[in-house]
Amino acid sequence: MSLIVQKYGGTSVGSVERIRNVARRVAKWRSAGHDVVVVPSAMSGETNRLIALAKEIQAQPDPRELDVIASTGEQVTIGLLAMALLELGVKARSYTGWQVKVLTDSAHTRARIDSIDEVRLRGDLAAGRVPVVAGFQGIDGEDNITTLGRGGSDTSAVALAAALKADECQIYTDVEGVYTADPRIEPDARRLRNVTFEEMLEMASLGSKVLQIRSVEFAGKFRVPTRVLSSLTDPMLPVEEESRSGTLITFEEDPHMAMEKAIISGVAAQRDEAKITVHSVPDKPGIAYAILGPIADAGINVDVIVQNVSHDGSTDLSFTLGRGDMPKAMKILKEQVQPHIKCRDVTGNEGIAKVSIVGMGMRSHAGIAAQMFRTLAEEGINIQMISTSEIKISVVIEEKYTELAVRVLHKVFDLDRV
Amino acid sequence: MSLIVQKYGGTSVGSVERIRNVARRVAKWRSAGHDVVVVPSAMSGETNRLIALAKEIQAQPDPRELDVIASTGEQVTIGLLAMALLELGVKARSYTGWQVKVLTDSAHTRARIDSIDEVRLRGDLAAGRVPVVAGFQGIDGEDNITTLGRGGSDTSAVALAAALKADECQIYTDVEGVYTADPRIEPDARRLRNVTFEEMLEMASLGSKVLQIRSVEFAGKFRVPTRVLSSLTDPMLPVEEESRSGTLITFEEDPHMAMEKAIISGVAAQRDEAKITVHSVPDKPGIAYAILGPIADAGINVDVIVQNVSHDGSTDLSFTLGRGDMPKAMKILKEQVQPHIKCRDVTGNEGIAKVSIVGMGMRSHAGIAAQMFRTLAEEGINIQMISTSEIKISVVIEEKYTELAVRVLHKVFDLDRV
Repeated sequence: MSLIVQKYGGTSVGSVERIRNVARRVAKWRSAGHDVVVVPSAMSGETNRLIALAKEIQAQPDPRELDVIASTGEQVTIGLLAMALLELGVKARSYTGWQVKVLTDSAHTRARIDSIDEVRLRGDLAAGRVPVVAGFQGIDGEDNITTLGRGGSDTSAVALAAALKADECQIYTDVEGVYTADPRIEPDARRLRNVTFEEMLEMASLGSKVLQIRSVEFAGKFRVPTRVLSSLTDPMLPVEEESRSGTLITFEEDPHMAMEKAIISGVAAQRDEAKITVHSVPDKPGIAYAILGPIADAGINVDVIVQNVSHDGSTDLSFTLGRGDMPKAMKILKEQVQPHIKCRDVTGNEGIAKVSIVGMGMRSHAGIAAQMFRTLAEEGINIQMISTSEIKISVVIEEKYTELAVRVLHKVFDLDRV
Repeated sequence: MSLIVQKYGGTSVGSVERIRNVARRVAKWRSAGHDVVVVPSAMSGETNRLIALAKEIQAQPDPRELDVIASTGEQVTIGLLAMALLELGVKARSYTGWQVKVLTDSAHTRARIDSIDEVRLRGDLAAGRVPVVAGFQGIDGEDNITTLGRGGSDTSAVALAAALKADECQIYTDVEGVYTADPRIEPDARRLRNVTFEEMLEMASLGSKVLQIRSVEFAGKFRVPTRVLSSLTDPMLPVEEESRSGTLITFEEDPHMAMEKAIISGVAAQRDEAKITVHSVPDKPGIAYAILGPIADAGINVDVIVQNVSHDGSTDLSFTLGRGDMPKAMKILKEQVQPHIKCRDVTGNEGIAKVSIVGMGMRSHAGIAAQMFRTLAEEGINIQMISTSEIKISVVIEEKYTELAVRVLHKVFDLDRV
């Protein structure tokens, strides 16, 4: 008998019939002798509906009040799911964030979890009940309702699993796990049975929508074994089979497994990127901060940053950022930064994509980067920017080459072979 | 400067535009120098939508979980209304039932308020903020979410006004106040400027939909001056004018006012009634309890009860009840009671209505009942049952005579004259 935290995304609870299926699945795990805590998201579309309603009142909704409104989506789902479990004869009880309580900081709409009081949930588990806990929400130290931001229910589930020292956190979603590449781009993409926490973190940061990055960080920090698996399978799939499905995020590389493991775990592509270049800035100390400081102050995350070799005392600085942030960043640079630093020009380019290879095996194999660059060059794909970490190499290329780059890299690193 | 609690019903906050109008009205009262606490209901239709969703999962929804779901309706409205106030530059902050906190008993879906902690709200008022408090909801002693039942937001508002010792509780609704009769039946019906707490209580118990009966009880118990007024007027109507509109519920009859006051304050009709008669029961002690005990145990409220004069040691017992409860009551009487008490028969009649006259003046005037009965007799309306209290006389008549009875009584007691 083990303790499992199961998170179900918005699509998995998107209708009354789907909520019933989730209840059947939970009941099956209970029947197999496991203790289960369930964390559902809001029904798909509901959070967007609530935010749209708020924006009809205030174009820039007050963050505290937006959280009051947005948190009701999950509150409805926990009640419905608890009812569906009761209807199947499974003892269950719903909890909002404040009832648990899930304590966060006060950063409304993007709060971070500080602590979870698991005492009440332990009482339920001891009494044979399934606690159904609202994802995405918490309260701050002054009893204000907070939300964790998009995808926050993943973080709620992993944090609950950490607090309860659960044996596994299962993230049910509408994909079958983590793949070596996006199957819509590369038909030969394979599901990974295991992926290390570090690899998953890189993949999440590369925009893989499977898991929210903060939930992966949480899983890593508290060493919560986390499995991504499909909620679209038959709810009555035997527990033995379901418990081996999906992709398990592990924390140490099993030396035995590593022997058989490919050097690269996956190829990821991120399209919603843009590139900004600040031309001919004086190459002197503090110039990068003068450019990127105001961008960070505006809450804009930048990703890859490249500064050219200085030429005649001036240089070019380029960086990538989310495409949606580009107009705001351009405005800041043109109006606030350019008059100040006296650069020649600021230009933006929305026609780019970032393609990355990720793998723990990279650490012990030389020449991976060279192989990647050669492969792209052979296809005539120009590399605009490069960024590397210990287990990842990313290149920025022209957007139209995205699919081609993914496919050739998937092949050259043998990802299509088991 | 006074402290006012304003309650806005579901229709008054039924759309984004109407929420903006409520905000404008609240802002106007703030500008006139008053402290305001606002209690909105859920947007019209929302509570029904949520309950219907719950019933798709469970035909008889679990009461605890139903409250978790149903309470989200008001939670959305408080957030939207607080935003609308902020948008107008009015400092505002929303509160759910648990945030205030509104402590209730544990009777889910029909909980009663035990206490309200007004400390946090006082802090907001001192800081010049408008607290926007969710009506209809609270928490019990174990932090479970409770709701107060239909119309519960009226009770929330009056209870808040009592806790804050507010100068007035204003119940904004879609009628202009309390009338001498239903204006749809009697075109000459007039708005009452004042009505006593006792009269209002009788009117509420007669099914007048203006105020929920429990809110009137609360107003009476804590002597909260409560005004029923329209939210359909121009939001910019001057405060001096608005503060004299509607109907004010008072607690002592001003002797001066009483001189000019009509004997009768209003005529009320209630149609959703049914009558059950238990025929030829042995007239012995305990027989009324044997019949009505099982009915009460089933949670069915009976209203008028009449027992005939005994004849040959047996009698008939009739009572009225809500029409919706009749099938259930008939089943109990036929299956559980009849075999036990050996009555001749049990019959039900759904074609009845109850018409009542209410007025404090009745206490000091003899012959009011006689005048009522004579007036109905002159119109050929047969009286089936009679029930009286100190300030009310009700008669049960055939339903088709309802409008006629209301009109002739309205006229004979001079209610059409100011």
